[in-house]
Amino acid sequence: MKFSQLIQQLGDGVTRTSLSLTQEDDPEICGVADVDEATLGTLSFIENRKFADRVKKTAASALILPPDEDLISQAVERKIAWIATAEPRLLFARTLALFYQPFQPTPEIHPQATIDRSATIGENVSIGANVVICGDVEIEDRVCIHPNVVIYPQVRIGRGTILHANCTIHERSQIGKNCVIHSGAVIGAEGFGFVPTSSGWFKMQQSGCTILEDSVEIGCNSTIDRPAVGETRIGRNTKIDNLVQIGHGCKIGSNCALAAQVGLAGRVTLGNNILLAGQVGVANQAKIGDGAIASAKTGIHQDVAPGAIVSGFPAIANKLWLKNAALYKRLPEIYQTIQKLQRRMKSQD
Amino acid sequence: MKFSQLIQQLGDGVTRTSLSLTQEDDPEICGVADVDEATLGTLSFIENRKFADRVKKTAASALILPPDEDLISQAVERKIAWIATAEPRLLFARTLALFYQPFQPTPEIHPQATIDRSATIGENVSIGANVVICGDVEIEDRVCIHPNVVIYPQVRIGRGTILHANCTIHERSQIGKNCVIHSGAVIGAEGFGFVPTSSGWFKMQQSGCTILEDSVEIGCNSTIDRPAVGETRIGRNTKIDNLVQIGHGCKIGSNCALAAQVGLAGRVTLGNNILLAGQVGVANQAKIGDGAIASAKTGIHQDVAPGAIVSGFPAIANKLWLKNAALYKRLPEIYQTIQKLQRRMKSQD
Amino acid sequence: MKFSQLIQQLGDGVTRTSLSLTQEDDPEICGVADVDEATLGTLSFIENRKFADRVKKTAASALILPPDEDLISQAVERKIAWIATAEPRLLFARTLALFYQPFQPTPEIHPQATIDRSATIGENVSIGANVVICGDVEIEDRVCIHPNVVIYPQVRIGRGTILHANCTIHERSQIGKNCVIHSGAVIGAEGFGFVPTSSGWFKMQQSGCTILEDSVEIGCNSTIDRPAVGETRIGRNTKIDNLVQIGHGCKIGSNCALAAQVGLAGRVTLGNNILLAGQVGVANQAKIGDGAIASAKTGIHQDVAPGAIVSGFPAIANKLWLKNAALYKRLPEIYQTIQKLQRRMKSQD
Repeated sequence: MKFSQLIQQLGDGVTRTSLSLTQEDDPEICGVADVDEATLGTLSFIENRKFADRVKKTAASALILPPDEDLISQAVERKIAWIATAEPRLLFARTLALFYQPFQPTPEIHPQATIDRSATIGENVSIGANVVICGDVEIEDRVCIHPNVVIYPQVRIGRGTILHANCTIHERSQIGKNCVIHSGAVIGAEGFGFVPTSSGWFKMQQSGCTILEDSVEIGCNSTIDRPAVGETRIGRNTKIDNLVQIGHGCKIGSNCALAAQVGLAGRVTLGNNILLAGQVGVANQAKIGDGAIASAKTGIHQDVAPGAIVSGFPAIANKLWLKNAALYKRLPEIYQTIQKLQRRMKSQD
Repeated sequence: MKFSQLIQQLGDGVTRTSLSLTQEDDPEICGVADVDEATLGTLSFIENRKFADRVKKTAASALILPPDEDLISQAVERKIAWIATAEPRLLFARTLALFYQPFQPTPEIHPQATIDRSATIGENVSIGANVVICGDVEIEDRVCIHPNVVIYPQVRIGRGTILHANCTIHERSQIGKNCVIHSGAVIGAEGFGFVPTSSGWFKMQQSGCTILEDSVEIGCNSTIDRPAVGETRIGRNTKIDNLVQIGHGCKIGSNCALAAQVGLAGRVTLGNNILLAGQVGVANQAKIGDGAIASAKTGIHQDVAPGAIVSGFPAIANKLWLKNAALYKRLPEIYQTIQKLQRRMKSQD
Repeated sequence: MKFSQLIQQLGDGVTRTSLSLTQEDDPEICGVADVDEATLGTLSFIENRKFADRVKKTAASALILPPDEDLISQAVERKIAWIATAEPRLLFARTLALFYQPFQPTPEIHPQATIDRSATIGENVSIGANVVICGDVEIEDRVCIHPNVVIYPQVRIGRGTILHANCTIHERSQIGKNCVIHSGAVIGAEGFGFVPTSSGWFKMQQSGCTILEDSVEIGCNSTIDRPAVGETRIGRNTKIDNLVQIGHGCKIGSNCALAAQVGLAGRVTLGNNILLAGQVGVANQAKIGDGAIASAKTGIHQDVAPGAIVSGFPAIANKLWLKNAALYKRLPEIYQTIQKLQRRMKSQD
């Protein structure tokens, strides 16, 4: 489509564009691309001034830019059509959604699916080959279940949710509306509960369930356990990346993002709007306050205050950690200073 | 059931109960719950004095308590029926097992399972839809194989073992009796063996096998590799959580517990009764002695003595690590002291 | 086969053998084994002098040795047939490949596979039970697809590639020739892309694809995401172990080896011949130069120079890290010295 048409479709959020300068440069836009890999006819974006040199090099026909006069004048100079917006990444995401629709199978039930008679299936549901749905499962309208998914008994899957191939939903799990469960994820399996006895481990039965509220995403091969009693709960709109472990009885608030390979032990509590970067670990029963952030590989053993930014292992304030990291690189040198001081002291005796 | 009936069913391990004080308070118990979420008619437990305030607040009708007079008198005051026992968590687990039976499919072979003619299937075996069983596999009595499991050739599955959905058992694996393999786990796949050559990696064939002794549990999406030659072995009654990696040729003793996201490189040896907390890593060929404990995120590069408690990366004695962690928080301040001393020294020159 | 026949079959790479000393000791070799577990009739190997004591103890009938006169004379003394070679491990791998052929199903298409009509299937392809192949997929000759694999639309699988059970290949993925995708791995699923807005996360569509070049191996339950735009690429002959996360848009060169539980965030660039040990993490957009090595659990936040060896978190030069690790163990003692110096200073005031 024409650049001008694209702008019309985007509507709100677009404050200024190159069309305000000249109506003549209205290139045909046939797709979106990374700024470094863009070709003629594609639109790309620049997040901030740090990437200014890319405006000089890109082959993109149009760019989404922050409202930065330097960047804009560079685009003008190179005759690249542009859109200025306070949130370039968001507008790029909205543009991408115009050009790309993810694959979704047709809403039909494959004859090779195995569905228990007691299951309730809504309208316009897609159920792929070799899907197994056990007793008393309730599948709401427009759910899409890709092939080879297994759903244990008494599960409820909310409207519009997508279950990707080879994932497993265990008994009593409740999955909200418009969730996405990626391939290989396991929802609601038994928590890791064993009581030590003189004759070995005694298994704690896991009678609880796992609840995902609406618009939750769970990454590939992630595992969200259920607890012995009560529930494990992932709040509305929380997004979880691949290979993440959520232990039994965790309560996660809404709008959190947990990056890949994060691990929460049992009964961890997360507030809302929390970011945990890759490979973060959180110990049993720790509580993390709203809006807190943990940088990659942080090991959290204790409660974290709302809004805190923590790093390191054991977790400390990120600012302190940055200082320590700088000192850490100089540790042998610092130690030599101490030795020198010590020798000096001895020589004074 | 009545509280008094429950106590009868529990038998041993119950030393004192509220019924010894008064036979009148004999509430109806219809289930078990977490102490914070308990409602009328449920039984819960308190592990120790640290949770004393919960006795004051809980809505539970009955509590399992440690033999602590303060806790008991608080329960008495609130007219909560109670059981005193040296191991409240264990008794709670035993109570839970009275009220909850995990889902188990009926012992039949689904017509949509694909079973090689050379496979041997015992009695009262349950084989779900889309299960694939290759040649020369031996399935003993009362094994339960959930849907979409794949079993490669020459595998043996011992009596009463449960294989959850979507897990994969590779060639020559031997799984003992009463094991549980959770969803998505992969047992006995090829170890990661490549020899560097001038023309790239040369693949080391993985001709060995993986052996799980009796009563082993393997968590969801965990991976237990087989070695080039010989065996990978997980000892009796060892419990492994989700997303754990066990490299080729590891030997793990009995009664160990490995928490989620632990990784053992190749040929690691673990004794018996070892606890590895979440995200612990153990380097190639390291040996860990009986009863050792590693706290979360520990990186073990060398052998660990029996009974040792280690932490940190690289792993050091836990006591030393706790001291270091305290100093770590004060590092910038300590560095300032050193600088002050240095300036002082210079001023004395 | 006879030891002499084995040597003939091995051909190049064998420089000297015990047969050059005496043609009489020509044992029958029926298999290969670990040196500690070897029995009569097996061949094993010793990598270097460090394992000299094992030559004294092994029950192996033949040994592959480095060209080390001491080791050779020990083997001679014990009447063990031997082969001397500069690369014992490589020759052992080549010997193992003579004795062991991995299981491969017969090249036929199982009637219970679900294959879209628009898919193209090459010759001598094996497709197991419950495999699902969506539209416009292209499967080249001699591909082997184990049971319960799901292949989304528009995927291409190159000649001779093996897909193990229960793995999932997402839309538009391109997998080269002679690759191995191990059980449960997920290739080409949606990258973790969400843009924060005042009303929660806005999903960035993931329109890109994942490309594995020839001879790539991906371990069990590993996840290789696709990006919003462009591609995620794993270079020729790169080997990736179990439970590894490769984020959206990563570019990995050729001949790399990534050990288990490694995690690369988004848009990481790796050169060629890079080794990342277990549980290493690499932050967004970091670039690692050719031939670099990161030891286990390293956390890489910044670019790493070609050939560098890094360790620790945050990553520093391995040599510095080793020094720091030694000091780390002495931290409380070092702190006491500082306190002593401080007291001394004060007493001088």
